[in-house]
Amino acid sequence: MVGYSAKILRINLTERIIKTEQLKADVVGKFLGGRGLGARMFSQEVPPHVEALSPQNKIFLATGLLTGSEIPASSRYMVVTKSPLNNTIASSNSGGYWGVELKFAGYDLVVLEGKAVSPVYITINNNQVKIRDAGHIWGKTVGDATDVMLAEFGDSQAKVLAIGPAGEKCSLIASVMNDRFRAAGRSGVGAVFGSKNVKGIVVRGTEKVKGSSPDALQGVLDGVLSKIQNNGVTGEGLPTYGTAVLVNLINETGTLPVKNFQESYAEKADLISGETLAELYDLKKDPCYDCPIACSHKCRVDGQEVAGPEYETIGAFGANCGVIDLKPIITANYLCNEFGLDTISVGATIATAIELYQRGYIKAEELDGTPLEFGNGAALVEWVRKIGTSEGLGAKMAMGSYRFAQCYSAESYSMHVKKQELPAYDPRGIQGHGLQYATSNRGGCHVRGYMISPEILGIHGRLDRFKLEGKAAWVKMIQDFTAVIDSLGLCLFTSFALNFDDYLNLVNAVTGADYTGEELLLCGERVWNVERLHNLQEGYSKADDTLPRRLLEDPIPNGPSKGWVHQLDRLLPEYYQVRGWDSEGVPTPECIFRLGI
Amino acid sequence: MVGYSAKILRINLTERIIKTEQLKADVVGKFLGGRGLGARMFSQEVPPHVEALSPQNKIFLATGLLTGSEIPASSRYMVVTKSPLNNTIASSNSGGYWGVELKFAGYDLVVLEGKAVSPVYITINNNQVKIRDAGHIWGKTVGDATDVMLAEFGDSQAKVLAIGPAGEKCSLIASVMNDRFRAAGRSGVGAVFGSKNVKGIVVRGTEKVKGSSPDALQGVLDGVLSKIQNNGVTGEGLPTYGTAVLVNLINETGTLPVKNFQESYAEKADLISGETLAELYDLKKDPCYDCPIACSHKCRVDGQEVAGPEYETIGAFGANCGVIDLKPIITANYLCNEFGLDTISVGATIATAIELYQRGYIKAEELDGTPLEFGNGAALVEWVRKIGTSEGLGAKMAMGSYRFAQCYSAESYSMHVKKQELPAYDPRGIQGHGLQYATSNRGGCHVRGYMISPEILGIHGRLDRFKLEGKAAWVKMIQDFTAVIDSLGLCLFTSFALNFDDYLNLVNAVTGADYTGEELLLCGERVWNVERLHNLQEGYSKADDTLPRRLLEDPIPNGPSKGWVHQLDRLLPEYYQVRGWDSEGVPTPECIFRLGI
Repeated sequence: MVGYSAKILRINLTERIIKTEQLKADVVGKFLGGRGLGARMFSQEVPPHVEALSPQNKIFLATGLLTGSEIPASSRYMVVTKSPLNNTIASSNSGGYWGVELKFAGYDLVVLEGKAVSPVYITINNNQVKIRDAGHIWGKTVGDATDVMLAEFGDSQAKVLAIGPAGEKCSLIASVMNDRFRAAGRSGVGAVFGSKNVKGIVVRGTEKVKGSSPDALQGVLDGVLSKIQNNGVTGEGLPTYGTAVLVNLINETGTLPVKNFQESYAEKADLISGETLAELYDLKKDPCYDCPIACSHKCRVDGQEVAGPEYETIGAFGANCGVIDLKPIITANYLCNEFGLDTISVGATIATAIELYQRGYIKAEELDGTPLEFGNGAALVEWVRKIGTSEGLGAKMAMGSYRFAQCYSAESYSMHVKKQELPAYDPRGIQGHGLQYATSNRGGCHVRGYMISPEILGIHGRLDRFKLEGKAAWVKMIQDFTAVIDSLGLCLFTSFALNFDDYLNLVNAVTGADYTGEELLLCGERVWNVERLHNLQEGYSKADDTLPRRLLEDPIPNGPSKGWVHQLDRLLPEYYQVRGWDSEGVPTPECIFRLGI
Repeated sequence: MVGYSAKILRINLTERIIKTEQLKADVVGKFLGGRGLGARMFSQEVPPHVEALSPQNKIFLATGLLTGSEIPASSRYMVVTKSPLNNTIASSNSGGYWGVELKFAGYDLVVLEGKAVSPVYITINNNQVKIRDAGHIWGKTVGDATDVMLAEFGDSQAKVLAIGPAGEKCSLIASVMNDRFRAAGRSGVGAVFGSKNVKGIVVRGTEKVKGSSPDALQGVLDGVLSKIQNNGVTGEGLPTYGTAVLVNLINETGTLPVKNFQESYAEKADLISGETLAELYDLKKDPCYDCPIACSHKCRVDGQEVAGPEYETIGAFGANCGVIDLKPIITANYLCNEFGLDTISVGATIATAIELYQRGYIKAEELDGTPLEFGNGAALVEWVRKIGTSEGLGAKMAMGSYRFAQCYSAESYSMHVKKQELPAYDPRGIQGHGLQYATSNRGGCHVRGYMISPEILGIHGRLDRFKLEGKAAWVKMIQDFTAVIDSLGLCLFTSFALNFDDYLNLVNAVTGADYTGEELLLCGERVWNVERLHNLQEGYSKADDTLPRRLLEDPIPNGPSKGWVHQLDRLLPEYYQVRGWDSEGVPTPECIFRLGI
């Protein structure tokens, strides 16, 4: 086994046929694995215009080329499927242990096709694969369902992926959870599992992944590990506070979205910061597989140990809902994990709902007694519960902020791109990051091209966040670079410490391939363009490469980025140009030929 | 019981809760029943932008205000739900006995909510309602599933509604079947049943529907019956040949679509006419409940008795696929009934596929050996089978002609309006009918405003089919009139013999109401506008009130309508005006106020 097993597990749920297939070497060579492989197989196997919730959609659970290797933070797998939220190719990424265990079971990829007649879960015990009845766990929370599946499987070392009640009900912002509290969160991938009647997948694998030249790898690894440990972000900030370390940092730049992006600076942000979290809620490291960064933490609230909220979760439920109090944020996070909901989209949808209520679109009688107001932590928790159970107005909110706002003909108050809710960075104060929001293939997203690195953190470079010069080329480069990392199955956070050459050396050392840097980056560009071509085929156009009107027209009213709007119209044409696309954002024949897609 | 029972049966499939509710008198007064009641309840209960295949969609099985009464041809019920084909409000209409039996069981309406955990069917024995396991019949054809459900129910007088394998697989052109071979055919309503895991509904009811003043009704009935019997269409043409009587008639006007609307006249149409059907295939009347017209027929082929093909079916599989041979048409019709597929959409999709193959969009290797060519009857039958089983290219075709053509970026070869396939009348030679296609709320459809009556058959008037003058007002009037008939649960074919006053007298005699003609027609206009507002809310606009490019730009090349194109741009503004809509096709506040919606 050289990095990958080249084995696909294909499960047809309609016919209950389980088979294995060989993965073609040339596809791996061009698309690596993970996100790239998933996107390629999706685009070849699923016809355009399939309804995302119909049996014709497929789910590709793809580990990365390097997932489960000896490389630090190589824990990631991708859920690739058609997004029911916005018809893009979803590729929701998660860490923990599940993806690694799948690799250890001998599979690079699981394909789920069709639709089970009734609820099922799947067990994978190395090469023993079974489809089992899940009638008794349908309706259960992620934690409870995980307990039952694990007990029935009978091996406590197995890893479990599951959807919660939100996915079962096809909430369009439902996530896929693994290892109880880790989320392949975005694009509504949980609803696709629900539509196929798949509650979960238990996996146990015992074969380690071996690289082709262990000695060569060891040399590269030593250098990489040292870089990670000696970097301020990966060696100190993230290990100590988790991603919540960003709260104060982003707030101090005046780009922390507050009250549905009506403001961008919170006076008392420190009360919801990583530092406060550590001080008051007993943060304890809980790392993913083989990860020296260990950004992931548990915390303790009212004597109970639960997952610590990530920066995005604090941004969405905290600042953006005006709730400057960690306790309800931690509870909302816990509920999202149990219901199987994406915290970013849920928080953003509640924020939109509050603004719609303030503006009179939503009437008091629709609320069934639960207030919609900024800063009300108890109500926030109750709305999360209502979204998770599709109760009352929660049923509409479970469709995400765009559709919810559409119900009131008030789409402009949904802070979305391509119907997916924006993460917790106000792009008016981070121009390159805004361009990346507008062009992200899966819609509103921060992890497809984290321009925060060069524009705020000074990583890979130190750019003026308000300036436009060179930003289009930067966004392209970081998007392609990220597509490589996602396809390798490494955690994006490794990129805070490593440069592109490090990844190149890792790939070549593990697989024995001899990619040049240019060739490897081309893999990422290929992935990006396959995703783009899908979007164009689904009817997306230049007009959808945009930002909410508020971010383009209303200057930030307070804080250190006061007065700025996003200048997308000055950036987009240049971006198309550096991508080799025409002025409408369509890849030119030359571009497609160059990429060999 | 005065016409209707005012009782709703509501079944929550997720929670397995069955309850009855009272129907509000004021809603009935404004929306009558059937299509109107369904549309009203749908628009009030189902939020906009719900995914049609998600549990949040609902199904309203609505009998008409007069369904099951002593009035002839009062057999209709409507399947109202969000269409997965095009997101409009589906209201697919069927006759036979099922809807009447539902009324006899004491219900005006059944609402299906949520999604069953595993396949179920529902039994309604008067007020005894049960949700039963359907695991053993999932995958069975409509006929086989009906046999099993009927046997298990134990009362051979019960009536059965069922979906076939196509609906289970969420084909977007899947129908809901009742009484084995009658179809609520259009808008993909079968897929919504499939998405909710509902295989069928058995119903037995023993309480007759009584009118409020039997004596008054008897007088009206005598006159109505005599009109139906003495009318050339309802007393002779339809009873003798069924709707297939139209084949020669429409062909002789040069408006019979041939080869995907590339031509509009078939030299040998008589070989697939009602007359030939009667001569060679032993037509035998098989009427719906209490129907003196008895347009529905069985026929006999190779010793087997099967449903006779309707005009639309002959048009779609015959002329439009270039198959001038009744035998494969009868077989294709039989297969559609068993798989639960809409014959119009299936035929149109095959015709589109053939043209795409001819033009080189589809490659030979995609065909798996089954030819795509006009005139090949054996291949036609095989394509129907492949669509029914979602096999090979059939899986893409099961999404309907628009999405299928989109897969090849060749939408202009899909002969659709709002993604729904056009029936068998070429609007280039029937200008009013073309306007009605373009403006039909559920997309390509002939029975929402059958302008063939005045423009070809000389019923209600005798219009010059090529002229534009007055057509917009005619279309509006016939659309509203039809919405009344659909809401009453009467067969549209009664309108070949009856005029609006007859319907008015029937309504008032049965219900004891005292509608004026103006008030009753306003009910129809109300229904039309509720449907229109839904479409606007879903994102449809003026740009979608259109016809395929071919029909607007390419003159008919042959036959008696040679040289004509459709002049939609000259008709549409006038239509908006007579509807009281603004120039963008949006109902004005005055219009909405006038209608009280």
